[in-house]
Amino acid sequence: PGLTHFDETGQAHMVDVGSKKETHRIAIATGTIRMKPETLAIIQSGTAKKGDVLGIARVAAIMGAKRTSDLIPLCHPLALTRVIIDFQTDPEKSAVTCTAQVETFGKTGVEMEALAAVQIGLLTIYDMCKAVDRGMVMSDISILEKHGGRSGNWTSTKNAS
Amino acid sequence: PGLTHFDETGQAHMVDVGSKKETHRIAIATGTIRMKPETLAIIQSGTAKKGDVLGIARVAAIMGAKRTSDLIPLCHPLALTRVIIDFQTDPEKSAVTCTAQVETFGKTGVEMEALAAVQIGLLTIYDMCKAVDRGMVMSDISILEKHGGRSGNWTSTKNAS
Amino acid sequence: PGLTHFDETGQAHMVDVGSKKETHRIAIATGTIRMKPETLAIIQSGTAKKGDVLGIARVAAIMGAKRTSDLIPLCHPLALTRVIIDFQTDPEKSAVTCTAQVETFGKTGVEMEALAAVQIGLLTIYDMCKAVDRGMVMSDISILEKHGGRSGNWTSTKNAS
Amino acid sequence: PGLTHFDETGQAHMVDVGSKKETHRIAIATGTIRMKPETLAIIQSGTAKKGDVLGIARVAAIMGAKRTSDLIPLCHPLALTRVIIDFQTDPEKSAVTCTAQVETFGKTGVEMEALAAVQIGLLTIYDMCKAVDRGMVMSDISILEKHGGRSGNWTSTKNAS
Amino acid sequence: PGLTHFDETGQAHMVDVGSKKETHRIAIATGTIRMKPETLAIIQSGTAKKGDVLGIARVAAIMGAKRTSDLIPLCHPLALTRVIIDFQTDPEKSAVTCTAQVETFGKTGVEMEALAAVQIGLLTIYDMCKAVDRGMVMSDISILEKHGGRSGNWTSTKNAS
Amino acid sequence: PGLTHFDETGQAHMVDVGSKKETHRIAIATGTIRMKPETLAIIQSGTAKKGDVLGIARVAAIMGAKRTSDLIPLCHPLALTRVIIDFQTDPEKSAVTCTAQVETFGKTGVEMEALAAVQIGLLTIYDMCKAVDRGMVMSDISILEKHGGRSGNWTSTKNAS
Repeated sequence: PGLTHFDETGQAHMVDVGSKKETHRIAIATGTIRMKPETLAIIQSGTAKKGDVLGIARVAAIMGAKRTSDLIPLCHPLALTRVIIDFQTDPEKSAVTCTAQVETFGKTGVEMEALAAVQIGLLTIYDMCKAVDRGMVMSDISILEKHGGRSGNWTSTKNAS
Repeated sequence: PGLTHFDETGQAHMVDVGSKKETHRIAIATGTIRMKPETLAIIQSGTAKKGDVLGIARVAAIMGAKRTSDLIPLCHPLALTRVIIDFQTDPEKSAVTCTAQVETFGKTGVEMEALAAVQIGLLTIYDMCKAVDRGMVMSDISILEKHGGRSGNWTSTKNAS
Repeated sequence: PGLTHFDETGQAHMVDVGSKKETHRIAIATGTIRMKPETLAIIQSGTAKKGDVLGIARVAAIMGAKRTSDLIPLCHPLALTRVIIDFQTDPEKSAVTCTAQVETFGKTGVEMEALAAVQIGLLTIYDMCKAVDRGMVMSDISILEKHGGRSGNWTSTKNAS
Repeated sequence: PGLTHFDETGQAHMVDVGSKKETHRIAIATGTIRMKPETLAIIQSGTAKKGDVLGIARVAAIMGAKRTSDLIPLCHPLALTRVIIDFQTDPEKSAVTCTAQVETFGKTGVEMEALAAVQIGLLTIYDMCKAVDRGMVMSDISILEKHGGRSGNWTSTKNAS
Repeated sequence: PGLTHFDETGQAHMVDVGSKKETHRIAIATGTIRMKPETLAIIQSGTAKKGDVLGIARVAAIMGAKRTSDLIPLCHPLALTRVIIDFQTDPEKSAVTCTAQVETFGKTGVEMEALAAVQIGLLTIYDMCKAVDRGMVMSDISILEKHGGRSGNWTSTKNAS
Repeated sequence: PGLTHFDETGQAHMVDVGSKKETHRIAIATGTIRMKPETLAIIQSGTAKKGDVLGIARVAAIMGAKRTSDLIPLCHPLALTRVIIDFQTDPEKSAVTCTAQVETFGKTGVEMEALAAVQIGLLTIYDMCKAVDRGMVMSDISILEKHGGRSGNWTSTKNAS
C-alpha cells in the first residue's frame, strides 16, 4: 500500500479527513536523553531545590504540542483538550525519560503532537545542560500507545532500543 | 559548576550574550529513524520517482531550524546564514539518518538549531509514513561537531548508541 | 482548593477539558493606559483625521486574541467566533480605555483571549506614542464579565482601581 | 510634534532605523497583579514546594519577549541578547510584581520587549489562578528605565499609581 | 450594502459567526506566475529529475494555508480538513499556474485559505528562481469556485485576465 | 546556470550567505487588485470617513513583511529596518495598487519581504470586501526595483501586464 500523504501522481497533499468521525483521541509518546552522571545529578538536585530544568522543559513540551501543525507540513491542525508531560530520571542509565500524553476530540489522531512534545521537551533539557555536557544523546522517541479513531487501540510491542 | 541558564537563586533567565564576540558558528547534528524494511523501501522508491518523503522532510527541517528560538524557552534568536540537510537511507539498519549543518555569524552557537532541524526532519518522516508503520523509533539525535565561539572546535567521541 | 493547572504532585499540565460541554462562551475584559494630556490630544486628533493610533491598536488587539494560546503556556487553543475591540478616550483621566469582547462556541472560556486582546491593544498604543511620552502606564486590566460554561455568568464587582 | 509612526499624510509605516547606530540597549519594565490574599498564599506556597506558578510565568514572559515584533504591528524585529524576569510577592498589597530587564545590541530600543514580557508574565499568573480568583487586576505596567540609543538614559519619575 | 467587517461606526471587528451553521466548505483558488522561457525550462527539468521547485512550493503552499488566520487580521481561525495544491506548467504562456483546493467543516468559508495557499506557492517559486529571473510576475490570483455555507455554490465567470 | 537553492545533487538547501557583505538593501514591489466599481467606491469612501479597509490592509502588509522567512521555506531571516506601504486607488481600472518598500542592512536582499507585504496587503483587501465582491482578481505582483548587494541596482523593464 502507498503512503496516504501522496496522491496517485506522487504529489503531496494534506489528506481529506472531512468524512472522518470526531472521536476521543489519545496518544502517548516517549523518549529519552542520556547524559553524564554528573549532569543528571545537577538536574535532580535542581528539580528539588533550584534551577528547575524539568519544570521548564515541561512547559516547552506542552507549548510544543500546540505548535505541531505549524512545524509538520502535512499535519492537520487540532484543538488539543489535554496535555500531560512526565519526566522520570533514571540514575542507572544516566538518563531522563519524557512521556507525553495528548488528547483531543476530533477527526485525526494526536500521535504527532505527542511526539513533538517529547522532542521539544528533550531538546529543552539539552539546551539547559549543554554548557556542562555537549555530548547528550536523545533516543527511543516513539509512540507507546494510541486510542480512538478508525484504527482503534494500538500499543507498541517494542518501546526501547 | 552550575547551569548557566539559572541565576544564583535558581531562577531561569536568557543568559547575557551581549559581550560575546560575533564569530562564524557552525554546528552539525545527526539523528536516525528506524522503521520496517518495507517502509524504507517505499521511501527509497518514492524519492527516486514519486511521493518524495525525504524532499518534504528536508523542507520541514530547514523551516524548523528557523523556528528554534520560538520553541526552546531560553534559546537566543539568531539569523541563520546557512542550513544544509542530508538524508542517508541505510537498508542494513532499516533506517534513515538525517544530518543537519547550520551556520551563522553571531554571538551564540547554533547547536540547538541543528538539533531542532534533525528532530523536525525525522518527525516529518514519521508523519508521512505512520499510516503504514506506527512503530518507527527516532534515536541517536546528538551533536557531531561544532565550530566557532569561545569554546572553539568540538567533536563528538560517540555519535552512535 | 488547589490550582487546577497542577496535578497532585505539583507538575503543570494542560488540564483535561475533553468532557466539558461545548457552550457559547463570552468574555469581556478591559484595561486602561494613562498618558500626558498632550499625548491624548494627538491620539484624539489622529483618529479623526490622520495617524490613526486606535485603528492600528484595534487590529493588533484582534490579532493578539488569536495568538493567545501560543503565548500562554497552559491555555487551550480555541477557534474564536467573534472579537470586538472598543476604545474610549477619557480627557478627564487623560487615558484611553480598551474593552475587548471575545466569543466562541467551545469547551473552555475565552477570558484569556479577551485579556490578551486588551494587553496587546494597550501595548500598541504605547508603541506608537512612546516617542512623545515614555511614561505612559497601563492599569486596571481585568475581566468585567463572562458567560457560558459550567460556572455560568460572572460579573466583576470592582473593575476600577 | 507628531508621532513618528505616521508619515506626513497620516499613513502608518515601520520607521526607518537604518541609519541609527547599533548601541547596547537596556530596558526595564514592571507591572503588578493584585489578587485575594488566599490566592497569593497559594502562589507563595507553590513556589517553594510544588505547583510553581511563578516559574511557569517566568518562562512565558521570556518567550513573550521574543515574540514582541510579531505582536506589535510597527515594532522592529530585534535579536535579544539578555532577558531577566523577576517576581516579587507583596503580602501587604496582596500582589505579585513582575520586573523584566531586556537587552540587545542594536538599532532600536527594547522597551516594547520588556513591557510585553511583563504583560505575558502577569497574564500567565492570571491564567493559572483564575479558577480560584477571577477578579485579579493587572496594573502599573510601565517602563522604569532605559539605556542606550540616541536618547540615552531615561528613568521614570512615577512608577506606581 | 456596507462591509461586514466594520460596525455601524466604522470600526473593524472580527464578525460574529457563532450562529452560523457548520457545513462542509470548499474553496478553489488559482493564480499564475509568468517567467522567461528558460526559467520555466529549468523548473520543468528540475521537477522531473532534481531541484524540485514545484515540490517545495507545494509544501509551502500547504503550510501557508494553515497560517492564514495569523496573517489576515479579521480572518477567523479554522481547522482545515483537506488541502490540495496543483501546479501546471504552460510553455506557451511561459508560466506556472497554481490551483489550491481547501476544505473544512465549519462556520466560515475557506476562500482566504485557498488564496493564501496560491500566493505563498507562487511566492516560493519566485524565491527559488529569482537568481536567474528577477522579473517574474504573479497574476490572476482569484477564487474559481466555492461551496457550502449560507451563500451555497459560487463559480467565477472570469478567471483569467 | 542552475538554481542556487539546490546543491549539485538537486537537494534544496538554505544557501550560504555567511561570506556576503552587509550592505544597505532596498526592494520595492507592487501589485494590483481589480474589483467592481462599486466595491472601489466603498473602499474610497471608507478610507476618508469610516471602515478603513486600506488602513487595516496596510497594517497586515507590514506585519506580513516581518513573517516572510517563516512562510517561504528557503528564505533567510532578516531584521528589517524600514517598511513603507502605499495604496493607490485607480477608478479608471477599478483597482487598488499596493506598493511596498522594504529595507534592511544585511547579507541578503529584501525582495521576498516586499513581495510578501504586497500579497498580504492585497489579500487583506480581498478579505474585507469579499462579502460584496467575490470575483476580485490580484495581478501584476512583481519587483519594481532593488538596490544593494553584489548585484547592485536593478529596475524592472515591464511592471504592468
